[in-house]
Amino acid sequence: MATGQEQGGTAAKPLRADARRNRARLLEVAEEVFAERGPGASTEEVARAAGVGIATVFRHFPTKEALLEAVLVRRLERLAEEAQQLAEGRPPAEAFFDFFNLVVDRSPVKNAYAAALADAGVDVHAAVSDAGRAVSAALGGLLAAAQGAGAVRTDLEVPELTAILVGTCRMLQHLDGRPDAARRARQVVLDGLRG
Amino acid sequence: MATGQEQGGTAAKPLRADARRNRARLLEVAEEVFAERGPGASTEEVARAAGVGIATVFRHFPTKEALLEAVLVRRLERLAEEAQQLAEGRPPAEAFFDFFNLVVDRSPVKNAYAAALADAGVDVHAAVSDAGRAVSAALGGLLAAAQGAGAVRTDLEVPELTAILVGTCRMLQHLDGRPDAARRARQVVLDGLRG
Repeated sequence: MATGQEQGGTAAKPLRADARRNRARLLEVAEEVFAERGPGASTEEVARAAGVGIATVFRHFPTKEALLEAVLVRRLERLAEEAQQLAEGRPPAEAFFDFFNLVVDRSPVKNAYAAALADAGVDVHAAVSDAGRAVSAALGGLLAAAQGAGAVRTDLEVPELTAILVGTCRMLQHLDGRPDAARRARQVVLDGLRG
Repeated sequence: MATGQEQGGTAAKPLRADARRNRARLLEVAEEVFAERGPGASTEEVARAAGVGIATVFRHFPTKEALLEAVLVRRLERLAEEAQQLAEGRPPAEAFFDFFNLVVDRSPVKNAYAAALADAGVDVHAAVSDAGRAVSAALGGLLAAAQGAGAVRTDLEVPELTAILVGTCRMLQHLDGRPDAARRARQVVLDGLRG
């Protein structure tokens, strides 16, 4: 019976409210520490910055990779939330292009996390798949609204838009330290996207 | 005296005409073998395909890396020659966009060579610097002519155009196996480049 299966299931026990808050606070501190010292910073540094013992960190995140992965997932979840806020609070064209620029601006840090996880042998794509799908869905919503408003070319779909984001991030990485050239390169893509 | 210095200098002796021809023929065969079997193909396979002994290959290219590097340099030299031919034989807009597409279409093979060299510890950038500069110069000439003809936006310079090429190649790599989406993504960049 359904009820019995649910009670006896193997699903992870939901975290109590205070455990959830502790976990969220640790993630927040970890993100700050990694932002400051790079994803190579140690779990000990995160524990010290959070003012807790290392055992507390390991209770929530059994390995350094689990912590990095959780920070990356949290960043993607936040990105999807921000897309939602833009969709609700801004005209479609502005929402779309603001989000495009937000993703591009955040990509160097995201790539640093992804590289650190890949170096540790983690299948990053699988690790962030749910959060990644949420971002893709949000992107699709912003794209459709901007196309409906005549602000973005109508022949584009989410897969190529995602590839265009990836490629634009690669362009800007190539122009690291040359902000004027980077601005002009980005403008080429933005103009090409317009309807 | 100048003449004495030249005679006694340490500069490499120029290859005789037949040695030059043999080297060029080996490079041609090597490129075909690598194109068919990937840059992992062995020097022995190249020798066999060229119908010469392995000693002959090693006389021209002391290591597998030297051979790979020479093939990559030859590809870049040919690209610079093709840019020159386009500049001389086509209207500026057509020459520029044809060359842009040529570079993008050739990039997967070029990247495979560069990755094989990097894996072998070769500083690829340094290894191909002369040939790379020739391609950049050719690209600059095509860009200036296309801008002069009003076909390409005038705010672009060679560094960002190079970055745009790199980023476009990354886009298409992301869309490998999805030719329709790849065509649309490329079109976004081409339209963004127009003046």
